[in-house]
Amino acid sequence: MLDADLLLRNFELLTMQAGSKPYGLIENGAVAVRNGMIDWVGPANDPGIEGFDGTIVEGNGEYLSPGLVDCHTHLVWGGSRADEWERRLNGVSYEEIARQGGGILSTVSATRAASEAELFTASRKRLEFLMRQGVTTLEIKSGYGLDVETEKKILQVATDLRDATPLDVQRTFLGAHALPADFRGRAEDYIDLVCGQMLQEVSGLCDSIDVFCEGIGFDLDQSRRVIEAGKAAGLQAKIHAEQLSNLGGAKMAAELGALSADHLEYLDASGVAAMAKHDTVAVLLPGAFYFIHETQLPPVELLRQHGVAIAIATDANPGSSPAASLLLMMNMACTLFRMTPEEALAAVTTNAAKALAMHDRVGQIAEGFQADFVSWQIGSPAELAYGIGHNPCQRVWKRGELIVDYGQ
Amino acid sequence: MLDADLLLRNFELLTMQAGSKPYGLIENGAVAVRNGMIDWVGPANDPGIEGFDGTIVEGNGEYLSPGLVDCHTHLVWGGSRADEWERRLNGVSYEEIARQGGGILSTVSATRAASEAELFTASRKRLEFLMRQGVTTLEIKSGYGLDVETEKKILQVATDLRDATPLDVQRTFLGAHALPADFRGRAEDYIDLVCGQMLQEVSGLCDSIDVFCEGIGFDLDQSRRVIEAGKAAGLQAKIHAEQLSNLGGAKMAAELGALSADHLEYLDASGVAAMAKHDTVAVLLPGAFYFIHETQLPPVELLRQHGVAIAIATDANPGSSPAASLLLMMNMACTLFRMTPEEALAAVTTNAAKALAMHDRVGQIAEGFQADFVSWQIGSPAELAYGIGHNPCQRVWKRGELIVDYGQ
Repeated sequence: MLDADLLLRNFELLTMQAGSKPYGLIENGAVAVRNGMIDWVGPANDPGIEGFDGTIVEGNGEYLSPGLVDCHTHLVWGGSRADEWERRLNGVSYEEIARQGGGILSTVSATRAASEAELFTASRKRLEFLMRQGVTTLEIKSGYGLDVETEKKILQVATDLRDATPLDVQRTFLGAHALPADFRGRAEDYIDLVCGQMLQEVSGLCDSIDVFCEGIGFDLDQSRRVIEAGKAAGLQAKIHAEQLSNLGGAKMAAELGALSADHLEYLDASGVAAMAKHDTVAVLLPGAFYFIHETQLPPVELLRQHGVAIAIATDANPGSSPAASLLLMMNMACTLFRMTPEEALAAVTTNAAKALAMHDRVGQIAEGFQADFVSWQIGSPAELAYGIGHNPCQRVWKRGELIVDYGQ
Repeated sequence: MLDADLLLRNFELLTMQAGSKPYGLIENGAVAVRNGMIDWVGPANDPGIEGFDGTIVEGNGEYLSPGLVDCHTHLVWGGSRADEWERRLNGVSYEEIARQGGGILSTVSATRAASEAELFTASRKRLEFLMRQGVTTLEIKSGYGLDVETEKKILQVATDLRDATPLDVQRTFLGAHALPADFRGRAEDYIDLVCGQMLQEVSGLCDSIDVFCEGIGFDLDQSRRVIEAGKAAGLQAKIHAEQLSNLGGAKMAAELGALSADHLEYLDASGVAAMAKHDTVAVLLPGAFYFIHETQLPPVELLRQHGVAIAIATDANPGSSPAASLLLMMNMACTLFRMTPEEALAAVTTNAAKALAMHDRVGQIAEGFQADFVSWQIGSPAELAYGIGHNPCQRVWKRGELIVDYGQ
């Protein structure tokens, strides 16, 4: 008889395991959980689960997917850029807004000014909103500090969110997000700081390092320095690359073994080939594409042809993607990037887990994986990506524990 | 002393009354409610409200807006088009999908097959999801029946939703939504049915009439016949016009005194002028624009110049706008159509009320209006439209009654 403490049964399982069936579907399936891990997955009529006398959760035909993974967010920030956005829509020029102290540096000022407690409270709300749409794992980047003290403060808040909420939180150090005002004209000096004292002080508070490789960010050599310093400090690497132009950042990062290259609208064939060769995940961010009126589409078909794993994330941030819904990002991936609904679900489960090096334990309903699930009130799996601004989430479990329940 | 049964105070009031302040803002304001109607609006420190001893609701600085108005939905439908959408994204051609019975006629089949109770249950869920984002008034169109019996059934469900939920529901007869299969090649005969027996049987179940004036819908003369028949039966008129091409439907409908012309991507200057002259509301539907990859933008600047009131709605429907969030439509109106956040809020309050001929009682926080409010946890009014897929709604009141409370 089944040696488990929890049995979910009579769900349509979207296991997302690779196999012959779309979505890794197991119709009328069951999942047994022991100590927060998946112990067994199979059909609900399997004789092996008969007579189980622990806690049973009935699905009544609901769909069950892995907990969603939001693998690229800047969730911890101070202030708001809504009023700046409003001024732009009222006809004020970018130049005038920059003169008024707008743009990313206004978020940096507000984040520096905010207390740890204020940042924690605001970020926790954002995290919980994502969670109530089925997110059970997320990544949080620093990058609105741009000085040692504030980068540490942000990563401390990310650590506190990891410790205070049921979610898995992966923390990424993005000191090289933008050049702070006091380093104007001295980008190399700032990269020295990022790779030196700053990295040293934050390395115990993060899992990965990241850099914005772009004309308005850092150049290819500076980006390489950041990644190499991070790797030397034992961190995984990620890169913001090819968002507004093609500097070759994705290729460089892939060759250095980065987990993912993110944005990628301007990625070319050689970048795709390098990512395929080094098994680097392509993280696409349709919220930013939409919000900044980008027209250059990421090379989805080329990524498919080369077998590059594609993830999708919210890119939640106050400047270019004030997105609060990973489900909506799935719709945008289909509507704007012409991905399929099945690709979109893989992009927020197994592939997103891979972008965080967690794909051995998160992102699939499979034996040995964490018991992270979402039940959905939908008529078919395509409906997850099809709705615009909807939320068919019914219940969310993290490591076997029920953390969201709309039925109550 | 105040003769009221409810006092909301210490809110930032977005009254949406025309005046000198953006959003009709009253800082630290108060609203007194008697019998579900607004009795008094003013500053919270007004001596006239001192000593009030009825129920007091404290805002603690939250923003309070009028209840939102979703003035264009097709909320009552059977079946789902998600799988058809998935097949398209997997490369199946439109022709093949049409051969498989896809498109609007598949929704018609499913709606005809569904029982009144099934339609009611499904639609009520959609209505309640909108309500939990602050919608207190909405319009529901028929148009997935295309026969007498099913058009009646849909409008009966809309009526039941009106009676069973706290929301105001305006019902619109859209028998002329598409040509049913059994009338192929006989559009005039179908229009005879719509204007004759069908209208006669549904006229007690609706407030307005509507028609889809388009190459794939009905031509200008047929559309005029529908509107004239509706007006003769005592109904208000609306039109789907200039969505995919410019047939002059908006101008025609304006000249016949229609409340609104909806979609309008291809509206030209003479159409705008006619709408201005006849005070016809322009209802823009950014969800459909987004979902069907439209690139022709509606003439927002021209509408502004002519002083045409602009409303925004979800167009909630299973084919071209599976949108569940009016807040997201506000963001899309700003992001895609470059409307301002203040215009977007007016577009889902006072102007949307005007599109339903309810602007004497709904869509503003003003004396004599219904006590329909939403409180929002935002730092500035621009944040309402700024978030992508968020929901800062805290509480919703309809005619003075608390119907949604996230704080509980």
